[in-house]
Amino acid sequence: MARTGRRPGPSSTRATILAAAAECFAADGYDATSMRRVAAAAGVDPALVRRFFGGKEQLFSEVAATLIVPARALAAVTEGSPEAAGERLLRYFLSLLGDVMHPGPFFGLIRSAVTSDHAAELLRRLLADEVLGRLAAAYRSETAELGAALAASQLVGLAVARYKVRLDALATADPDDLVRWVAPVIQSYLTGSHIC
Amino acid sequence: MARTGRRPGPSSTRATILAAAAECFAADGYDATSMRRVAAAAGVDPALVRRFFGGKEQLFSEVAATLIVPARALAAVTEGSPEAAGERLLRYFLSLLGDVMHPGPFFGLIRSAVTSDHAAELLRRLLADEVLGRLAAAYRSETAELGAALAASQLVGLAVARYKVRLDALATADPDDLVRWVAPVIQSYLTGSHIC
Repeated sequence: MARTGRRPGPSSTRATILAAAAECFAADGYDATSMRRVAAAAGVDPALVRRFFGGKEQLFSEVAATLIVPARALAAVTEGSPEAAGERLLRYFLSLLGDVMHPGPFFGLIRSAVTSDHAAELLRRLLADEVLGRLAAAYRSETAELGAALAASQLVGLAVARYKVRLDALATADPDDLVRWVAPVIQSYLTGSHIC
Repeated sequence: MARTGRRPGPSSTRATILAAAAECFAADGYDATSMRRVAAAAGVDPALVRRFFGGKEQLFSEVAATLIVPARALAAVTEGSPEAAGERLLRYFLSLLGDVMHPGPFFGLIRSAVTSDHAAELLRRLLADEVLGRLAAAYRSETAELGAALAASQLVGLAVARYKVRLDALATADPDDLVRWVAPVIQSYLTGSHIC
């Protein structure tokens, strides 16, 4: 951790703890991450982590809120030509995941949701209330929520297969290859259009 | 555990341990499952579990081999009319996952692969060598391996979103709804056909 001579204020300490927590959740998953471990990674006293965030569940929620910004996901889908919505959402998602050899903290959220009920509930709430429901409203279609949920399922599966299981063909594919194959699928889910 | 008066032979004890291990991996994930816990669930001495299976990695490998039968997945895709291959693979996969409220041990494999490097490596090897490579060979196409990997990614993502994150629209969808939406996607990945 780089240190300056100036004593950091509360907001920078808070940000430091959040960044350290994001790294820990990404590297070790939700279950194996303790408040003590986050404190050590942030170079602060565990009591300070508790003072700022209460418990691990709240800490995870705050990390998730810094990583998933529903307004940006929505903008990726809805701003621009409708026929490229699938591609925009896919490219935005791939940019969140980062380098295929070193997935960043965003992958930690997905990983945590698979093992922790709290993380799964949080992701469900964030996705369902803040993203999928609004997309459904934007498309004014009865099946839009199912379609948006299916788009989310393809994105999550792509993350797991490429970044964790590392199926060779997916781990070595470049983003443009993925866009060629997967963007039409995301597009068809989002718009409910048929596939032929 | 139901007990009969007859002392079980080694092969039935082995099967009992494997079944107990599958339950433990499904309920608690790979990391939280210990040999001792499996032994307790099977009602046998931990030393017996070690004698039959060595360590946890081998035990997990054996459980995976009982749950993933590559020949059946391949048959689901290749036996029958080519234009319904996607639907057959999807229905086979959904049948493996089982009830949406109580996913069975197969979901435990997927869950474990997301958190454990050993489980991820095993799944990669099983899928890549035994399923995806053969599908690619069957379709004699350069992009068949990527397409098959993408089909796998959609199936894994569907499992996570429906059974764990439990996005409402997916958790309440019946298999026929899912087939209507997802089978064409699996089909397009398997055959490399375009989506319009």
